[in-house]
Amino acid sequence: MSSTGLNMSRRIRRTPYTEKVIEAGVSGFTVVNHMLLPKAFKSTVEEDYWHLKENTQIWDVSCQRQVQIEGKDAEKLVQLMSPRSITNMPIGKCYYYPIIDENAGLINDPVLLKLNKDKFWISVADSDVLLWAKGLAVGSKLNVKIFEPDVYPLAIQGPKSEDLMVSIFGNEIRKLKFFHFDYFTFKETKQIIARSGYSKHDGFEIYLNGFKLGNELWDLVWAAGKKFNISPGCPNLIDRIEGGLLSYGNEFTLENNPYECGFENYCKDINHNFIGKKALIEIQKNGVEKKIKGITFDGNPSPQCSIPFPVYSNNRFQIGNITSGIYSPFLKTNIGLSMIDKDYWKDGQDVIVLTPDNIERKGKVCSIPFNLN
Amino acid sequence: MSSTGLNMSRRIRRTPYTEKVIEAGVSGFTVVNHMLLPKAFKSTVEEDYWHLKENTQIWDVSCQRQVQIEGKDAEKLVQLMSPRSITNMPIGKCYYYPIIDENAGLINDPVLLKLNKDKFWISVADSDVLLWAKGLAVGSKLNVKIFEPDVYPLAIQGPKSEDLMVSIFGNEIRKLKFFHFDYFTFKETKQIIARSGYSKHDGFEIYLNGFKLGNELWDLVWAAGKKFNISPGCPNLIDRIEGGLLSYGNEFTLENNPYECGFENYCKDINHNFIGKKALIEIQKNGVEKKIKGITFDGNPSPQCSIPFPVYSNNRFQIGNITSGIYSPFLKTNIGLSMIDKDYWKDGQDVIVLTPDNIERKGKVCSIPFNLN
Repeated sequence: MSSTGLNMSRRIRRTPYTEKVIEAGVSGFTVVNHMLLPKAFKSTVEEDYWHLKENTQIWDVSCQRQVQIEGKDAEKLVQLMSPRSITNMPIGKCYYYPIIDENAGLINDPVLLKLNKDKFWISVADSDVLLWAKGLAVGSKLNVKIFEPDVYPLAIQGPKSEDLMVSIFGNEIRKLKFFHFDYFTFKETKQIIARSGYSKHDGFEIYLNGFKLGNELWDLVWAAGKKFNISPGCPNLIDRIEGGLLSYGNEFTLENNPYECGFENYCKDINHNFIGKKALIEIQKNGVEKKIKGITFDGNPSPQCSIPFPVYSNNRFQIGNITSGIYSPFLKTNIGLSMIDKDYWKDGQDVIVLTPDNIERKGKVCSIPFNLN
Repeated sequence: MSSTGLNMSRRIRRTPYTEKVIEAGVSGFTVVNHMLLPKAFKSTVEEDYWHLKENTQIWDVSCQRQVQIEGKDAEKLVQLMSPRSITNMPIGKCYYYPIIDENAGLINDPVLLKLNKDKFWISVADSDVLLWAKGLAVGSKLNVKIFEPDVYPLAIQGPKSEDLMVSIFGNEIRKLKFFHFDYFTFKETKQIIARSGYSKHDGFEIYLNGFKLGNELWDLVWAAGKKFNISPGCPNLIDRIEGGLLSYGNEFTLENNPYECGFENYCKDINHNFIGKKALIEIQKNGVEKKIKGITFDGNPSPQCSIPFPVYSNNRFQIGNITSGIYSPFLKTNIGLSMIDKDYWKDGQDVIVLTPDNIERKGKVCSIPFNLN
């Protein structure tokens, strides 16, 4: 069973674009941060994949909720939450920013935006970072205000996105560098636009401030997008796996630490004080027993991974679980992401993948992102 | 649109009973605490409602995740999180236990179980209380261990539940009082069973400790249930609304305080220290501008409330939003739950409800639970 009915209610929050997404023919949703995320439209994942590679798409990613941290102690709290140093973070920059707990377990892997020296947005994956941040602030008596602002990211992704965005917001768009943001005018409001997104292609995220402007923004992008062959979309599973883009809750959870997830680069400059520092240094010293790797595996196109696929060594010892998997029409093989035990994580290692159709498939371990050359 | 496809993945966690629930013909799920909650089976909400009133049902409510708080400072932390005093809480008791933040905004309305003097479970509605509790503990340097244990509640609800449970666990079941729990043997393990549940009928919740025992527990209850006319079920919307059982995220959110939600009784004995105390006392002093009330409204059976229905005064001033609504076949009228502005919250107040079919319906404000006599 890959999909079944999802019952709607206020608790599963609609976005400013939900009406438009329904008009555009959405055929499935998932729930992230208590909010709807479209998962499929009329075309197949594979059709969407090829379309995204050459065109531009509009994605309702409002579920990337913002946690706004503001006030005298904002920088202190933001720094306390991550091994990644923000000492030299400039205003206008986005940082990939793993958040860990006291045991160095991952609470989230959001994108951090520095709005000014006392004001940050944490654009979160699927866990209530708001409650973690508030708990820390209240417990530590920090002078900050923490809340979820009225902000709903709309992503424009794919190689034609720059031209599309220029046609709407002007030539200044071209100056935006990857993982930077700036302010642009929309309907007499100032809106943050970042060059970023959950795909391996060029793209932008409009952090729309104001629920009630959603319809107009969607319509504007949609109309301007016609000549760039725009289509409605959502994070594409093939593109995401090929690109080695991890998903919190799928590839890793609170049970995992940054070293298991390949986040070493964000744990290098740790002279600052942060939660989980002692545990992280201990893990760094001792090394980890497993880490996330790519797996290619043969046979018929793999079903989507609604239940993890066990990965075995040739002597039938379970060494991992593919938590996201699919057939890559570009690589012409099945691909997946899996935590793999230390003794088997070398590139080229032979493995066996058991898919739910009860077929044992031959596979090999590889690095991520997958090699698309 | 009341339902559409839900895409599955590891992030939307399956429960120990998901396989059984699928075998039993589930036709829709929702997501609570990053976990599947069945929302419908083969029969209609109304058929289930009548069945529940007279028989017994088995509900997979594993999504009521437990937050285990254990250690020297456990009681201190648990008390810090709620205006409800736990000073005299006995071991073996369940408490309805509103959790508030520093502004007295509601973070959750879980059930608290006291396992021993240094060990509690918080059985949570849909928000990551785990992160709030951990944040507070880390920030305040409390000596506690906080985690989600391997526990998956299975609810047995309806008037024949006692007889069914006795047939499995023996006569000791009859001694269990409402909102108390005790230990019972299942497959050589000790399991907690409470007399509780998210319905207005008699019922039990088995806090199954051990994912891998799920299939066996389900099969045991199912087999024993045949002679009590058991059916698979889930929290029933008609029963829930009639009974005035609120749903976090639907009727109230972090934006609301306990007085708006009718939780005055849990804010009476507040000599202890807790987060949000100052804000709560201020609210108590000033009174609130709105509170949750029942609404009866006429016309054809109401569609389910996937988008809130606005509630107007006779002079077309919006005074509320029905966040959960449905037709009650018992009361032979439509019923809903809504925050209602102060000037209109008196029982008997005439209101107008606008349903998504664009029909204005005449309604009246009433107290909850609805009067079923």
